[in-house]
Amino acid sequence: MATQGQVITCKAAVAWEPNKPLVIEDVQVAPPQAGEVRVKILYTALCHTDAYTWGGKDPEGLFPCILGHEAAGIVESVGEGVTIVQPGDHVIPCYQAECGECKFCKSGKTNLCGKVRAATGVGVMMSDRKSRFSINGKPIYHFMGTSTFSQYTVVHDVSVAKIDPKAPLEKVCLLGCGVPTGLGAVWNTAKVEAGSIVAIFGLGTVGLAVAEGAKTAGASRIIGVDIDSKKFDTAKKFGVTEFVNPKDHEKPIQQVLVDLTDGGVDYSFECIGNVSVMRAALECCHKGWGTSVIVGVAASGQEISTRPFQLVTGRVWKGTAFGGFKSRSQVPWLVEKYLKKEIKVDEYITHTLTLGEINKAFDLMHEGGCLRCVLSTDA
Amino acid sequence: MATQGQVITCKAAVAWEPNKPLVIEDVQVAPPQAGEVRVKILYTALCHTDAYTWGGKDPEGLFPCILGHEAAGIVESVGEGVTIVQPGDHVIPCYQAECGECKFCKSGKTNLCGKVRAATGVGVMMSDRKSRFSINGKPIYHFMGTSTFSQYTVVHDVSVAKIDPKAPLEKVCLLGCGVPTGLGAVWNTAKVEAGSIVAIFGLGTVGLAVAEGAKTAGASRIIGVDIDSKKFDTAKKFGVTEFVNPKDHEKPIQQVLVDLTDGGVDYSFECIGNVSVMRAALECCHKGWGTSVIVGVAASGQEISTRPFQLVTGRVWKGTAFGGFKSRSQVPWLVEKYLKKEIKVDEYITHTLTLGEINKAFDLMHEGGCLRCVLSTDA
Ligand SMILES: NC(=O)c1ccc[n+]([C@@H]2O[C@H](COP(=O)([O-])OP(=O)(O)OC[C@H]3O[C@@H](n4cnc5c(N)ncnc54)[C@H](O)[C@@H]3O)[C@@H](O)[C@H]2O)c1
Ligand SMILES: NC(=O)c1ccc[n+]([C@@H]2O[C@H](COP(=O)([O-])OP(=O)(O)OC[C@H]3O[C@@H](n4cnc5c(N)ncnc54)[C@H](O)[C@@H]3O)[C@@H](O)[C@H]2O)c1
Ligand SMILES: [Zn+2]
Ligand SMILES: [Zn+2]
Ligand SMILES: [Zn+2]
Ligand SMILES: [Zn+2]
Repeated sequence: MATQGQVITCKAAVAWEPNKPLVIEDVQVAPPQAGEVRVKILYTALCHTDAYTWGGKDPEGLFPCILGHEAAGIVESVGEGVTIVQPGDHVIPCYQAECGECKFCKSGKTNLCGKVRAATGVGVMMSDRKSRFSINGKPIYHFMGTSTFSQYTVVHDVSVAKIDPKAPLEKVCLLGCGVPTGLGAVWNTAKVEAGSIVAIFGLGTVGLAVAEGAKTAGASRIIGVDIDSKKFDTAKKFGVTEFVNPKDHEKPIQQVLVDLTDGGVDYSFECIGNVSVMRAALECCHKGWGTSVIVGVAASGQEISTRPFQLVTGRVWKGTAFGGFKSRSQVPWLVEKYLKKEIKVDEYITHTLTLGEINKAFDLMHEGGCLRCVLSTDA
Repeated sequence: MATQGQVITCKAAVAWEPNKPLVIEDVQVAPPQAGEVRVKILYTALCHTDAYTWGGKDPEGLFPCILGHEAAGIVESVGEGVTIVQPGDHVIPCYQAECGECKFCKSGKTNLCGKVRAATGVGVMMSDRKSRFSINGKPIYHFMGTSTFSQYTVVHDVSVAKIDPKAPLEKVCLLGCGVPTGLGAVWNTAKVEAGSIVAIFGLGTVGLAVAEGAKTAGASRIIGVDIDSKKFDTAKKFGVTEFVNPKDHEKPIQQVLVDLTDGGVDYSFECIGNVSVMRAALECCHKGWGTSVIVGVAASGQEISTRPFQLVTGRVWKGTAFGGFKSRSQVPWLVEKYLKKEIKVDEYITHTLTLGEINKAFDLMHEGGCLRCVLSTDA
């Protein structure tokens, strides 16, 4: 390609400061170095982690930066030694890397690859600990190793999943975060069995993906809990069979669920990021075996608590990141499942806008009717 | 037998009030009713749960009562319809019942049988919600469905394990609580695999049994943590390979362990009952897969807490009651393992006294040198 080896100047939404509207800027994107891949991003969605860092709630958030981590695009060029992908490949950037070689990858017990984390955690690339983004020489930090709110981005080769080119990128970009997180929380982390009673706290994209995962796992009852009753109609389509609004009850919500299920649920999922709901999600589990999975991301510094007796009497407390999916090996598999119509994706997309309208997209996230907003990156 | 169907008057150690020395009294033990078994207790050990209730720390503790739940004896008579055991059978009373029929037993997921809990939780027998113990007509409460600090006790038939009559009762009485709890925490609850790194907080009987369980499971490193350095010599014999005294370190103990193990342990066990140690035990676990099991019983009302990020990044928080062993089916199997010298029991017995010396035995529990004290019940 003509751009290979060259700095590319393109449009990107830059977060200059926490809580200040993003600004579409002309950004210089350096060529990929050894082990790196430059990707032309075609579509990117917004997720709460973007809003969280943008809102200044992440004490480790670095500014100025280019946010975004739920996207799809095409490889523009690759750095030295990259064999995983080649120019023209359709890809989904993965904030959870998968190197296959580190202690984590080799354990077979987790998807939390450790290879590039030391760099992605501080907004730079591994090889030279520098950013590939700059504006007139001033470096702009990377975010989560993905930075997809840009027409071009540079990622580590272990952070990019090659997918079937037949897949519509404007849809499968969602397989970069929220949908796999919910499905995997059920399939990989909780391992819900057929016949189980499941409670889901929070019916946003993640909670709805949990519902779909639970339905395909054969759960007998899927109880959706949300303070916004308007969520229920949509939730039904994803498999939720019963709905509880905590506002309709005087009793603590865990007690409401225990009463409703003759002793508690088999599995619960917290998909909000609220530490008191995390406690309720654990405590509504059935004595002896109930397992609660934390999916939501709580505000920094907040703590969960409960009586240890809850665990001594058999409840299990877990959490999940990216639903336990190994990104490079399993995101392509999820894309195939979507193409075979075995999992929903289109149904989560409630809005489509352009990169230039990104601040409007952030506003939409606070509206009950919005699940995912997909931005095209055309100028 | 001559006593069958009769009230038996025998010696028992009665706890009249919290924290007041137990008094050896002549107690009337009524004959077993339908589904009940009267057992002649020959040996009983003391466990911390006895001391906990005696000390008035259990808000549900009822007085006057007969404590004791780690014992062995011989069936004296059985009530109507009892087929599980018959007079003359050697047995271990089980505070965790196993009926095989309730929701819990049938789940295959837990050892927490629910059949008689409503009665044993409030110090009475199921059939008539009354006690079988009395002194001159004044009822004395049962405790944990076992009440073994007595020459005779009455238990539900689902709460008694029939064991090999060749087993020495003065030893295998320990298989009624502490030793199975530790072994089972490793084998059933954590399912420690060969090669694992294990940390044990608290090296009393329960912690040492965890060490033995971890050793037989093939753990590569077994790190014992105790504030009493004198525990280490004994602990070595049970399989502990390294010792850490938190008092020797300025850093929080979780950090000490993370540093010592290049990222954290695979499995940790809290065998003390201290909520801050429970937190440390979770937080010293390896990111991605480390699992922490709460075994210790904390003071009533106390809570555990941590940052949810600990779980979202792959750590698992669990607990165990009686090590997850199904009592009636698995205690006899543990007795066989002891007879085949596959598990230790004798090594935990540091003191032997008589029932009449029970207050001395309670005092001994606070001495570092005491693991288990076994009382013979001869008058
Ligand atoms: N662990 C991971 O890897 C991972 C990945 C993606 C997202 N997340 C997190 O998952 C969470 C959910 O994401 P989302 O995109 O579905 O969010 P969302 O905002 O679309 O959905 C949250 C839902 O929770 C409901 N809610 C809020 N407070 C509630 C309460 N007290 N009780 C009941 N319901 C309540 C809201 O009405 C809303 O429907 C976020 O915290 C996000 O950061 C985690
Ligand atoms: N879950 C169950 O089914 C079950 C069954 C039996 C016993 N238990 C509980 O297990 C716990 C242990 O029982 P045990 O008989 O082994 O008790 P123990 O008192 O003999 O042993 C406790 C050990 O912990 C050490 N310790 C105290 N504070 C410490 C600290 N801050 N850091 C490190 N070490 C510390 C003590 O020095 C001692 O060696 C008790 O809480 C008991 O009630 C639970
Ligand atoms: Zn996300
Ligand atoms: Zn890796
Ligand atoms: Zn005990
Ligand atoms: Zn049962």
